[in-house]
Amino acid sequence: MSTETTTLTVELGERSYPIVIGGGLLDSAAEHLRAVGVPDKSPLMIVTDDNVAPLYLEKLESELTNGGYRVVSAVVPAGEATKSLTVYNDLITQAIEAGLDRSSAILALGGGVVGDLAGYVAGTYMRGIRFIQVPTTILAHDSSVGGKVAVNHPLAKNMIGVFHQPELVLYDVDTLSTLPPREVRAGLSEMVKHGLIWDRAFAGWCWDNAPRLLALDPEALIYGLEKGCAIKAQIVSRDERENDLRAILNLGHTLGHAIEAVAGYGRFLHGEAIAVGMAAAALLGEERGGETGLYGETMLMLRALELPVTLPEDMDTEALMSAMQRDKKFREGKMVYIVPTEIGRVEIANDVEADAIRDIIERLKEKEESS
Amino acid sequence: MSTETTTLTVELGERSYPIVIGGGLLDSAAEHLRAVGVPDKSPLMIVTDDNVAPLYLEKLESELTNGGYRVVSAVVPAGEATKSLTVYNDLITQAIEAGLDRSSAILALGGGVVGDLAGYVAGTYMRGIRFIQVPTTILAHDSSVGGKVAVNHPLAKNMIGVFHQPELVLYDVDTLSTLPPREVRAGLSEMVKHGLIWDRAFAGWCWDNAPRLLALDPEALIYGLEKGCAIKAQIVSRDERENDLRAILNLGHTLGHAIEAVAGYGRFLHGEAIAVGMAAAALLGEERGGETGLYGETMLMLRALELPVTLPEDMDTEALMSAMQRDKKFREGKMVYIVPTEIGRVEIANDVEADAIRDIIERLKEKEESS
Ligand SMILES: NC(=O)c1ccc[n+]([C@@H]2O[C@H](COP(=O)([O-])OP(=O)(O)OC[C@H]3O[C@@H](n4cnc5c(N)ncnc54)[C@H](O)[C@@H]3O)[C@@H](O)[C@H]2O)c1
Ligand SMILES: NC(=O)c1ccc[n+]([C@@H]2O[C@H](COP(=O)([O-])OP(=O)(O)OC[C@H]3O[C@@H](n4cnc5c(N)ncnc54)[C@H](O)[C@@H]3O)[C@@H](O)[C@H]2O)c1
Ligand SMILES: [Zn+2]
Ligand SMILES: [Zn+2]
Repeated sequence: MSTETTTLTVELGERSYPIVIGGGLLDSAAEHLRAVGVPDKSPLMIVTDDNVAPLYLEKLESELTNGGYRVVSAVVPAGEATKSLTVYNDLITQAIEAGLDRSSAILALGGGVVGDLAGYVAGTYMRGIRFIQVPTTILAHDSSVGGKVAVNHPLAKNMIGVFHQPELVLYDVDTLSTLPPREVRAGLSEMVKHGLIWDRAFAGWCWDNAPRLLALDPEALIYGLEKGCAIKAQIVSRDERENDLRAILNLGHTLGHAIEAVAGYGRFLHGEAIAVGMAAAALLGEERGGETGLYGETMLMLRALELPVTLPEDMDTEALMSAMQRDKKFREGKMVYIVPTEIGRVEIANDVEADAIRDIIERLKEKEESS
Repeated sequence: MSTETTTLTVELGERSYPIVIGGGLLDSAAEHLRAVGVPDKSPLMIVTDDNVAPLYLEKLESELTNGGYRVVSAVVPAGEATKSLTVYNDLITQAIEAGLDRSSAILALGGGVVGDLAGYVAGTYMRGIRFIQVPTTILAHDSSVGGKVAVNHPLAKNMIGVFHQPELVLYDVDTLSTLPPREVRAGLSEMVKHGLIWDRAFAGWCWDNAPRLLALDPEALIYGLEKGCAIKAQIVSRDERENDLRAILNLGHTLGHAIEAVAGYGRFLHGEAIAVGMAAAALLGEERGGETGLYGETMLMLRALELPVTLPEDMDTEALMSAMQRDKKFREGKMVYIVPTEIGRVEIANDVEADAIRDIIERLKEKEESS
């Protein structure tokens, strides 16, 4: 609670918004909402999941109520399956019944699942109303920047969505104390990703400070989350609608998504799957003429954060390959792959052969035997 | 087929798009798609309804196929009930199965129902892909401009939606020849609305040319549709996200929506309901000190277009009043009502008392007895 508070602005012209990061922020939520102009005449809706609700919902509700807001809450089941059109439809119904109007705001209290879902409700309710993120996971530093909100279709993840920027991100790092350790590590995977694609020094900082980050040291968390958000914000500001540059944020994701799909959602957390994906990309990058040590250093860094860097031997290579074919990152039939050239720098390669990927996948499996 | 073709541009910065209006345009659809940069590598999806499909789908499909495009079609049931999340979800599934990617386009072949639905699919599929309107009703000149796309929720019309501008509107007036006469009149109601809110001369033109419009004279249609689109485009260009000015497009709609809801959807077509709403607004406007003759002229104009201007005696006034309470045009509890001050000019009144509306409703019923 004694930690400082830091604010960074995501620069998107008239859609710019602040990300406030610090300890104890839930206790001043109403003040922060007022600061960004959320009116108190119209009801607010908090969306959260059933893991987070018992921990923080009452606190946020009573803080907002005391601050003069009318609040209704909707608790959805925790887990990726909640990002569905069915749950979405329930939330829309609740929003209508609670009388949310065009001046209302929807608050997402939780991780990326709740953020994506509640954000999609906010983005489509009456063609878009105010949206506020109150992230409670480390991974959500990633989903808090960029304005992508979505639900899943049974045939494809994040298939249904829009761009809808929040008005405010209120990141209370005190909430991270209850996060299960595996979720902590998975979140740190996206944090170090921001270093690996853009900022060698920050990647190095994550490596050096891995023990503090894993121990949830507030100062380290605030610095790391701010830096991670700031890097993503820089990239997004230059390419809000994902035309080119923004693709670099997908480092590790093409293979990562395939791993999640083939392993069955849940066996690998998203952050774990992309850690393996980043290891694979580093190996590919070094082979394509990238900096010497690229693969070795990437592996050490990820391992310092206690993240996986190899594939289980029983994972079906052809299943991974065909999952990647379905990935929406294949634009107009061409394979787009984000490949590191050195720590802190990546290229968007359009010419990666399927066989090269197949080969890398096989070698990531061998690695496990020898480790 | 011998009629000229006219093109108007909706000016929205980088989201600007052309509206091409003329006869025989379905026969050159591929050329028009190429002109706005729709690539042929990715599949297109045509969405249409089961009234329009037997009339024009084959023609459009074969024109596009001959023009080098791969096309899949989805036929939905005709009628407002099709603007639902259920049908939406089916269309998303079909789009995924057909392999639509981020370079694909979705074409709406039909009236406003198909336009709103297909537009909402395009606006949310992979966070937004290209959208092309091929309107086949007169009313759709209204829905072709402004970028509002939506589906209904069982509790409220158009509740779920986004703003998503089309790349192109291809308006083949030859398709209007098969439109049922009642739909023709309902569409003309929105056309004359554009005159009533913005352009006295155009309102007068609609009045003078009512017989030609009702007889679907191509030259009159092209002029009227172009002018109607152009007026809406001017308003939308100044206020893309519906903050203030755009509200004037709702002339007749607050009461109109209530009439549709209370009468049961279908008994009044949308255009018919808003004709009554526009008559009511003119009466209110004249009472509030508007131009003398405002109400009388508005009535004559609407009657020339064979539109209703009175309410059935059995319509429950209190039911209408409470339907209006639920209308999303009530912002932060205040009643916003669009009131004409003269033909061609309206004001956005924030101070209209419920009793004034109640009184007008009663008098529109009396009118029927004496007509
Ligand atoms: N929109 C974007 O740009 C973007 C970017 C990255 C990821 N995502 C999405 O984010 C989702 C993953 O996010 P996530 O990892 O935060 O998942 P999550 O929201 O499912 O949270 C992970 C788990 O931790 C629990 N939890 C959350 N906060 C807690 C806390 N403080 N204490 C105890 N438990 C807590 C949750 O209930 C859940 O069980 C995916 O759906 C992914 O697609 C979106
Ligand atoms: N997005 C907007 O800005 C906007 C504006 C106004 C209205 N709308 C929406 O538009 C819808 C009403 O549009 P509409 O009146 O075009 O309704 P519609 O699409 O239902 O068409 C009316 C009827 O005519 C049939 N039809 C269409 N074209 C035909 C043709 N050429 N020949 C024979 N039959 C034909 C249709 O099958 C339908 O039965 C409503 O849902 C309304 O909410 C949207
Ligand atoms: Zn990710
Ligand atoms: Zn209308």
